Amino acid sequence: MSSQDIPTAAISRLVTYLRILETLEQQDVSRTSSNDLAERAQVTAFQVRKDLAYFGRFGTRGMGYTVPLLKRELMRVLGLNRTWNVVIMGVGRLGQAIANYPGASDYQFGYVGLFDINPDLVGQNIRGLTVQHADDLRTFTHTTPVDLGFLAVPPEHAQNAAQTLVAAGIRGILNFAPTIIQPRTHPGTTDPTEEWQQVSVENVDFLAGMKRLAFYTLNPSLRPTEPTPSTTDLTHPLEE
Amino acid sequence: MSSQDIPTAAISRLVTYLRILETLEQQDVSRTSSNDLAERAQVTAFQVRKDLAYFGRFGTRGMGYTVPLLKRELMRVLGLNRTWNVVIMGVGRLGQAIANYPGASDYQFGYVGLFDINPDLVGQNIRGLTVQHADDLRTFTHTTPVDLGFLAVPPEHAQNAAQTLVAAGIRGILNFAPTIIQPRTHPGTTDPTEEWQQVSVENVDFLAGMKRLAFYTLNPSLRPTEPTPSTTDLTHPLEE
Repeated sequence: MSSQDIPTAAISRLVTYLRILETLEQQDVSRTSSNDLAERAQVTAFQVRKDLAYFGRFGTRGMGYTVPLLKRELMRVLGLNRTWNVVIMGVGRLGQAIANYPGASDYQFGYVGLFDINPDLVGQNIRGLTVQHADDLRTFTHTTPVDLGFLAVPPEHAQNAAQTLVAAGIRGILNFAPTIIQPRTHPGTTDPTEEWQQVSVENVDFLAGMKRLAFYTLNPSLRPTEPTPSTTDLTHPLEE
Repeated sequence: MSSQDIPTAAISRLVTYLRILETLEQQDVSRTSSNDLAERAQVTAFQVRKDLAYFGRFGTRGMGYTVPLLKRELMRVLGLNRTWNVVIMGVGRLGQAIANYPGASDYQFGYVGLFDINPDLVGQNIRGLTVQHADDLRTFTHTTPVDLGFLAVPPEHAQNAAQTLVAAGIRGILNFAPTIIQPRTHPGTTDPTEEWQQVSVENVDFLAGMKRLAFYTLNPSLRPTEPTPSTTDLTHPLEE
């Protein structure tokens, strides 16, 4: 499979379908269909079937899907059936909020290290981990395997902090700072350096939902008419 | 304007454009164009111009846009140039993380009340506010105008807590619980009750970014090829 084969939006929709399946499971609903998933996700049933077909055959024609089975399969596809060792870079107010966010542990995202450059924070104990200096990250990764780095530094430090994560061998970055992380490029080019070519970055905007809510609260007549709007975020805004 | 006129996705893209403009402003870039915005948001320039045209004429043909001006205009369109009085329902670990999340105050989202049903939390002081019992919300809104309610209760309590917000006259709900809030309907129908017809709900999934990151870190060859992925979340996954 190449990146041409599976659109980014399909991955975001898989995340949506998974969340819908989790809600159905909470409601003790054991079966669903592409029509049902489509309605809840506000896409067409054809889209649901096409998205799932990238990864295999999950249902029985005319019979729909078994909720716990499809949920488990989507978790496997997304890589949520394994543990992820995570470090948090930046443990001020934002980083601590992330460390304390419930739910991440449901998916076996486990925090193995906390890092900062602020001498007031280095050495402090947060959720059983001692905050280490960012300069020690590289040494840390020699002894502890780290899969992902969550960036929670002020926006003006985000690019440098991302470089520190990448230099330590971390290949997945979840950026919570309100700025866009750029890959480091070869001088005078837009080609990412070899180490950055391996890096996946997802940028999280905690405030996007608040902003949309402000708009729709001021403009209730423009609200989506569907009674059960779907609930996910997409990294990439799509064209109509 | 009716809800047919402005697609939900256009509102999500406005939020994206605003975030791009904020990043450009941080980088002291004073001018941009629909081509530049389009590239950063990963849509077409036509889409950018169409989205902006719903709300007015913001640029000069062939001259592009002034970054601070367009930013200010989009903030006005989204309703981010005014203050929003917010209550948080549920101030366990999640609600406290939200209360402590930096950035919300940049957009004049101000917390005016914290509510919970847990006797261990009621009466506690968090960020200068005394946690009140959820039963007292209705009385509270008689004396303090409340625009929005942020739901941060466990998923099994989310629907009831949403009803408490709506019964207190709150018309905008940002739901952080990992479940889908349904409007209350007339018995035996799918028609929302009158009070719910006025309510806007946005559901936030903090974990969607983590899940996508897990996938792309496991499948680096499927990563989007663009060097600067856009950075927002959409509530509604779109069709291709």
